[in-house]
Amino acid sequence: MSQIITFGEVLMRLSPEGNKKFIQASLLEFYFGGTEVNVGISIANFGGEVKHISCISEDFVGDTAISYLRKFGVDTSAIVRSKRPLGVYFLEVGAVMRPSSISYNRSHSSFSEIKPSMVDWNISLDGAKWFHWTGITPALCQGGYETLKEGLILARKKGMEVSADPTYRSGLWQYGGNPKEILADLLNYSTIFIGGVNEINEVLGTNFTYSEEDFIEASKLLMKEFPSITKVFDKIRTAVNASWHKIRSRMWNGVEFRETEDLDITHIVDRIGTGDAYAAGLIYGLQHFDDYKSMQFAAAASALKHTYEGDVNFSNVNEVMNILEGNTSGRFNR
Amino acid sequence: MSQIITFGEVLMRLSPEGNKKFIQASLLEFYFGGTEVNVGISIANFGGEVKHISCISEDFVGDTAISYLRKFGVDTSAIVRSKRPLGVYFLEVGAVMRPSSISYNRSHSSFSEIKPSMVDWNISLDGAKWFHWTGITPALCQGGYETLKEGLILARKKGMEVSADPTYRSGLWQYGGNPKEILADLLNYSTIFIGGVNEINEVLGTNFTYSEEDFIEASKLLMKEFPSITKVFDKIRTAVNASWHKIRSRMWNGVEFRETEDLDITHIVDRIGTGDAYAAGLIYGLQHFDDYKSMQFAAAASALKHTYEGDVNFSNVNEVMNILEGNTSGRFNR
Amino acid sequence: MSQIITFGEVLMRLSPEGNKKFIQASLLEFYFGGTEVNVGISIANFGGEVKHISCISEDFVGDTAISYLRKFGVDTSAIVRSKRPLGVYFLEVGAVMRPSSISYNRSHSSFSEIKPSMVDWNISLDGAKWFHWTGITPALCQGGYETLKEGLILARKKGMEVSADPTYRSGLWQYGGNPKEILADLLNYSTIFIGGVNEINEVLGTNFTYSEEDFIEASKLLMKEFPSITKVFDKIRTAVNASWHKIRSRMWNGVEFRETEDLDITHIVDRIGTGDAYAAGLIYGLQHFDDYKSMQFAAAASALKHTYEGDVNFSNVNEVMNILEGNTSGRFNR
Amino acid sequence: MSQIITFGEVLMRLSPEGNKKFIQASLLEFYFGGTEVNVGISIANFGGEVKHISCISEDFVGDTAISYLRKFGVDTSAIVRSKRPLGVYFLEVGAVMRPSSISYNRSHSSFSEIKPSMVDWNISLDGAKWFHWTGITPALCQGGYETLKEGLILARKKGMEVSADPTYRSGLWQYGGNPKEILADLLNYSTIFIGGVNEINEVLGTNFTYSEEDFIEASKLLMKEFPSITKVFDKIRTAVNASWHKIRSRMWNGVEFRETEDLDITHIVDRIGTGDAYAAGLIYGLQHFDDYKSMQFAAAASALKHTYEGDVNFSNVNEVMNILEGNTSGRFNR
Amino acid sequence: MSQIITFGEVLMRLSPEGNKKFIQASLLEFYFGGTEVNVGISIANFGGEVKHISCISEDFVGDTAISYLRKFGVDTSAIVRSKRPLGVYFLEVGAVMRPSSISYNRSHSSFSEIKPSMVDWNISLDGAKWFHWTGITPALCQGGYETLKEGLILARKKGMEVSADPTYRSGLWQYGGNPKEILADLLNYSTIFIGGVNEINEVLGTNFTYSEEDFIEASKLLMKEFPSITKVFDKIRTAVNASWHKIRSRMWNGVEFRETEDLDITHIVDRIGTGDAYAAGLIYGLQHFDDYKSMQFAAAASALKHTYEGDVNFSNVNEVMNILEGNTSGRFNR
Amino acid sequence: MSQIITFGEVLMRLSPEGNKKFIQASLLEFYFGGTEVNVGISIANFGGEVKHISCISEDFVGDTAISYLRKFGVDTSAIVRSKRPLGVYFLEVGAVMRPSSISYNRSHSSFSEIKPSMVDWNISLDGAKWFHWTGITPALCQGGYETLKEGLILARKKGMEVSADPTYRSGLWQYGGNPKEILADLLNYSTIFIGGVNEINEVLGTNFTYSEEDFIEASKLLMKEFPSITKVFDKIRTAVNASWHKIRSRMWNGVEFRETEDLDITHIVDRIGTGDAYAAGLIYGLQHFDDYKSMQFAAAASALKHTYEGDVNFSNVNEVMNILEGNTSGRFNR
Repeated sequence: MSQIITFGEVLMRLSPEGNKKFIQASLLEFYFGGTEVNVGISIANFGGEVKHISCISEDFVGDTAISYLRKFGVDTSAIVRSKRPLGVYFLEVGAVMRPSSISYNRSHSSFSEIKPSMVDWNISLDGAKWFHWTGITPALCQGGYETLKEGLILARKKGMEVSADPTYRSGLWQYGGNPKEILADLLNYSTIFIGGVNEINEVLGTNFTYSEEDFIEASKLLMKEFPSITKVFDKIRTAVNASWHKIRSRMWNGVEFRETEDLDITHIVDRIGTGDAYAAGLIYGLQHFDDYKSMQFAAAASALKHTYEGDVNFSNVNEVMNILEGNTSGRFNR
Repeated sequence: MSQIITFGEVLMRLSPEGNKKFIQASLLEFYFGGTEVNVGISIANFGGEVKHISCISEDFVGDTAISYLRKFGVDTSAIVRSKRPLGVYFLEVGAVMRPSSISYNRSHSSFSEIKPSMVDWNISLDGAKWFHWTGITPALCQGGYETLKEGLILARKKGMEVSADPTYRSGLWQYGGNPKEILADLLNYSTIFIGGVNEINEVLGTNFTYSEEDFIEASKLLMKEFPSITKVFDKIRTAVNASWHKIRSRMWNGVEFRETEDLDITHIVDRIGTGDAYAAGLIYGLQHFDDYKSMQFAAAASALKHTYEGDVNFSNVNEVMNILEGNTSGRFNR
Repeated sequence: MSQIITFGEVLMRLSPEGNKKFIQASLLEFYFGGTEVNVGISIANFGGEVKHISCISEDFVGDTAISYLRKFGVDTSAIVRSKRPLGVYFLEVGAVMRPSSISYNRSHSSFSEIKPSMVDWNISLDGAKWFHWTGITPALCQGGYETLKEGLILARKKGMEVSADPTYRSGLWQYGGNPKEILADLLNYSTIFIGGVNEINEVLGTNFTYSEEDFIEASKLLMKEFPSITKVFDKIRTAVNASWHKIRSRMWNGVEFRETEDLDITHIVDRIGTGDAYAAGLIYGLQHFDDYKSMQFAAAASALKHTYEGDVNFSNVNEVMNILEGNTSGRFNR
Repeated sequence: MSQIITFGEVLMRLSPEGNKKFIQASLLEFYFGGTEVNVGISIANFGGEVKHISCISEDFVGDTAISYLRKFGVDTSAIVRSKRPLGVYFLEVGAVMRPSSISYNRSHSSFSEIKPSMVDWNISLDGAKWFHWTGITPALCQGGYETLKEGLILARKKGMEVSADPTYRSGLWQYGGNPKEILADLLNYSTIFIGGVNEINEVLGTNFTYSEEDFIEASKLLMKEFPSITKVFDKIRTAVNASWHKIRSRMWNGVEFRETEDLDITHIVDRIGTGDAYAAGLIYGLQHFDDYKSMQFAAAASALKHTYEGDVNFSNVNEVMNILEGNTSGRFNR
Repeated sequence: MSQIITFGEVLMRLSPEGNKKFIQASLLEFYFGGTEVNVGISIANFGGEVKHISCISEDFVGDTAISYLRKFGVDTSAIVRSKRPLGVYFLEVGAVMRPSSISYNRSHSSFSEIKPSMVDWNISLDGAKWFHWTGITPALCQGGYETLKEGLILARKKGMEVSADPTYRSGLWQYGGNPKEILADLLNYSTIFIGGVNEINEVLGTNFTYSEEDFIEASKLLMKEFPSITKVFDKIRTAVNASWHKIRSRMWNGVEFRETEDLDITHIVDRIGTGDAYAAGLIYGLQHFDDYKSMQFAAAASALKHTYEGDVNFSNVNEVMNILEGNTSGRFNR
Repeated sequence: MSQIITFGEVLMRLSPEGNKKFIQASLLEFYFGGTEVNVGISIANFGGEVKHISCISEDFVGDTAISYLRKFGVDTSAIVRSKRPLGVYFLEVGAVMRPSSISYNRSHSSFSEIKPSMVDWNISLDGAKWFHWTGITPALCQGGYETLKEGLILARKKGMEVSADPTYRSGLWQYGGNPKEILADLLNYSTIFIGGVNEINEVLGTNFTYSEEDFIEASKLLMKEFPSITKVFDKIRTAVNASWHKIRSRMWNGVEFRETEDLDITHIVDRIGTGDAYAAGLIYGLQHFDDYKSMQFAAAASALKHTYEGDVNFSNVNEVMNILEGNTSGRFNR
């Protein structure tokens, strides 16, 4: 009986150590990730009770993926298995002006077989209070969309909070689904919108700019179109280069606009999953703090994720609170 | 203008170091292989001029695969590229009584898109003298079978030698092709059969045993059914356990039966690709030696491969000849 | 609610890679182990529901130890935490005639603080069917002895099976307890004895030899002294050298003597925890098979453990059954 | 016969590579360190003749620690051995706003057994000119305090220079000693004070601020209370975050106040031991240069230490002088 | 038949991982490089057809060096072999204010045996359009100078473009040759000068400063002395410290002076070969773009090289163009 | 003041991990060795006081070499430095029937500059009791021969024991010296001959076989020719293959012939330096035991060396005595 439900593909991540390219490497580090499970693991690291639902390969690679989730205390009891291989992504980590590069092998992965009949949502959502989804899942396959929708319908019926990170990634969406329509369909069952003007423009077909005014207008319009949505949280990243970013957060909660200060990340270790760390911070925050502090917590969590290799934020609540309280000079913990 | 042509899928191999299982690993070593390209690289290491033809992913993983082939001097000019990902296999290396385990991710790989129209055999076979194929290629997809057949027809028309390693692996053959019929169809264009009674039984539907008599009878029957085949070479492996094997070779060349002594491999480093090393030794041998010495050379090459990590035999001709001359006690080369 | 309970110290194991000595190393591999938790993890790998009870340091090392147990699906909910550091052992893995060396740092570890008041046995044993203990726990500290005894009393009251591996290690037992008396005290609450004539001689003060007759006599005498014990299982190791052992198993179950064939482990990867793998195999076996097959299963499990780095047996039931069925030549699993 | 004596615990340092956390690591790098031996090794790297006195475990870990000291030419002939294990500390290296974390296992280490009777100070100090001590040693155990005091008394009797780095770390001091009294007691035998207003406030119970005026007043008061002290040297660290610091130095030598420019350390590799590198630079400097140049040398040495992994400064005198001469742009040495 | 010819020594580079010093390392990474082959490989990575000519040791180290060149598609058919060992250089990579250190073992290397009789320039230059040389080759040995000169004479006879990077490194030039005279002699056969006022001052014995005016004057004077030279390209590096540089480019092409903006490299990974990456970018650029865009391309290529470990620039043309178009914030490539 | 003197070249050893070839490696492990220093370090590991005399490069590689010797407690105070680079050897470790391969880069190394004027033998031999030399040193250069001879003359004048391991390696001896004459010249100053019939045949121009009779006859003849020689010790190696050897020892001490049993080394880790371990065992033995026990000790030491990576025997006296007492089954040391 877990309070927080995440649903989505688990991928194996393979990357050379440090900033090496594949052509100069002979060893690869591996982790397991995927936007929704990253959120789940990060919340589990905050002490949240998380269940991740997915379809994973029935081989030693899949066994290892599941044991990776268990390591962080994520409930894996609702995961189903498939004869197809686990999805994989290959990553070359950039530096300075050199971008990171990613190549996916996921189009016929174990998760691509997901079907509504494979998940028993009644059992899976028993006792749950929060459901988190992203725009990746409905982009992967028709079954992903349908299975997710079934879960969301039940979640709302049970009065659960539903957070949506409706990222639109154009390279996916190969199966014929219409992104705009499908994301809109799913937003009807969502209560917290984690995204900015880009995501709102994508769904509404609008052209809002990054300005504060536009962000507020866009948020209002979104809430009008999707009345179940009560709050919009946005993460703003300013990139000096691939090694140096600044992160801040802003929100419109229907009542007021708030924005945090920039957090300066001068020496990025790994930026994969920093958006997921933001979502995880927000979900944990909204269960424990007020909106503004939740947003601060989320930004601090996201900033911390830039200091960890791999897809997930390893920080616990104290470590995030420490940043939030302004202790960003990295003094020793003895 | 290469003398020897190999055609088949190139896979990325990923395995933990030493005898680790995935669940205890955090780093994976990677190599590139595939039964036909293993043969090609091994022959290139003997100094042969080899061209490998394949369809490889158009990403940094595929770039790295191609550069891996180039490293050994294999001609990669006829390789075509695809948007699909490179096939991958995951390997856990066993020890003693623990078997090695392999898990494949290849069913929708870049090679699975191969079509006759993608390879210009007239250009590719220009100046070539030998074509090597295996039972893996026609097992993967209809296009693999058809493209291969087109190549073989032209090869025979040009009077090239064609060696066949018609390994039958039941886990493949998912696309609907009939293994027995297809392998038989391709053997009609082959001149050297690299396989034993198992492979002959598979193609002819017979029940020959491992005995010398049966091997000779089986070979004769095979040559009768496929008159283009002039010689049959078989590698016999006796396994004490996963770490300790013995290898010997036998042949029927239409005239005489010969068999080599067992080579004792007391401390196996990696047994992947030892059959390919045998085939490579044989192909190189038949271009330079008589039948018996070729068979000895092939067995020694295969034995040496057990001492290298990865899919290919790194030995040069002198190193193989050294074994063939009985210097198996591993004295220093200074 | 776990069926099988293990109780004991969790140690961090630190060893150079391969056969290196500390003086030539700059990197250490680490695992977590300890004789009882090794048994627990190995049973969990067979699919058993296992809860491990221990006292672990409240720092990032302890967090990592707990996540290591969770990775294998072991229930860690009853673990208590302490301000003291986790116990550590350093290991140099020998080869051929060079023995492995171990150095411990455990005498003031977090587990050394264990007290009966720290474990709520009523909750911990709820629904449990089997309790496994070893002679290490009462050797470490008075609190270890007392806490264990309290658990055993309740276990027997609930009719649970209790397996004892009363290994006597003279280097421990620093706190003043009398090994012979304490082990005898605890055997009064045990039903399955996992040990041989050495362990019986230690407890009874006898001088039995390794002969079959003596083993039977010793077992009979043990059962007479400790009437709750119904079966005695012994593992016999013959060492050619540090890299090459043979393992077999024998038993006296009150009715008959049985003995298995030697399993020949020609290339040992790591022999730490091979006794624990035997115990785990036996416990799992006795829950699913008859006595003789259990003993075979245990011996096969122990043999397989020699092929894995680290303290635990990573094999699943199929992999052990495969050995038990005589497939010891290590053929590929594809 | 060494000129410079350091006395204190040697610890094994264990940390994952790069910025990894324990939970994501499988390998640990190890070094040996401890504040006093760090000073000793750094001075040895400058060419100083250093003898380190300690109590080290009598196992292969202790053997390796001793060989580590010898590697740098430190005289280990006065080290005594103990049955207890070597102290260990675990380190997770932070980045940007993420602090580094340390967990100690030292409270019952080999050094915790140190007693005055174990060190023959007459022999050990024969021919020595300088004794360096820190506030860590008397914080660890009564024997550490007493043994150190005995050494200091003799050192002063012989007219040796005595440098004190009376760092106060509240997490230590578990054995009941009164930090203020004990540190004051030991300062009576000291001539060079390496510390700032924090350390002075701790010993004198004052409340001086970081201002230049307060630093001078504090130093004067300290010298009045402890007339043997002739000079006070302070290192000031400004932290942008865990990856980016600035270091400068100031002093009051009874006559004048001097302060260096900030050295900007934009990409910290490892900040452990940078205070020890400062002390080492100062001790070496005061033996070869005037006060101001010594202070510059110390600051440059400390800055350089931030660019090395591990606990010690690997720089030689030329490399430090190079920084001191303003060559901080890191041009190649060919 | 390759279009671009590079000629010079291939060295093995050995360096500890990251910023480690040799004294703390136990593993070394190795690459192969050398200023001319670095240029060749970088151009091959842009898709250029490159042949590198050298003399390489006839052992497994030399075999590996050759296979390293082939990996990038460089034509190695004109390389000759020698009984002498391959040249080696050892590298400690600095950080912040700590400079990198290099130690060479090349004075009696395989390349030091090069003689005009060993290279058949008629065959080697068949079909070639561009010859690149540097001041390292004539500095190594008389045979290097003579062989190079013979090649340049023929190259000019064939109307090839000849780029010169007449770096003067005083530590070389041990064999007695006069640097000024020899470099001048070779510049008579060159058309593109890649170097700045330092290099011009060295050859002409002048004292020009870094000012724009002096650069133009120096270039004019150079072109007057060496009428075959038509363009001068200079790379300007501003070093904050060993980890943070800025790079820009300027030129005088006989008609106009142009200068690019600084590219800010805030987190250098490896600066070896960044000058060679500049030369490679320039050579590729001048074959495809106008002078100014070539200079921009070269500066961008050089900046990117700072983000790769090893001696060569792994970037392809698109990756360089991306920087040139101002995309320096390192956004993901998916 | 060291009792035992070794004199000879120190080489850096570079080899891929495990059984990898250079062409498949990207990392190399490094150690420092050389036949005489291997003997010295091994004796230091037994507790002997050893001084090694050599000429080592004046760079960070040489610094690291010297610190490597110091790590084992070898006195490095008599080592001289040179501008030339340290000698290097590259090693590929074979397995089973694949031999190990070595490639040297030493002909112009720092040691090749050694001259009698560089070593002050009066100071170096002060207080020494034993001098060990091998046939490698006079094979390298005239200065090696002359410097060694000067040392041997003084050693004999002082009544020191002189052990000779006159290995003849034909690949060396490039400078023009006559091996037979020079080795004979040096044997005139030697007292213990460590070598067998091969070495005797080389020096005397005889044709003795490996038989016991011939060994005795050869030894007698040798002692007649070189009356200072009192004992001959021979190590006999039987190679099953590169991974499996047997070692035994025999001697003629002027009075009796003795021979030990074969020690069976079933899983060789690294055979480099096993002859040096024999010599070291013998030298240590003859200082502490009778002739036969010395020979047993030497054989056990040599056998143990096969279980360590690197050039030297890491065993202490207890570990060797353990083998000598027949404990070759590799039981745990706890």
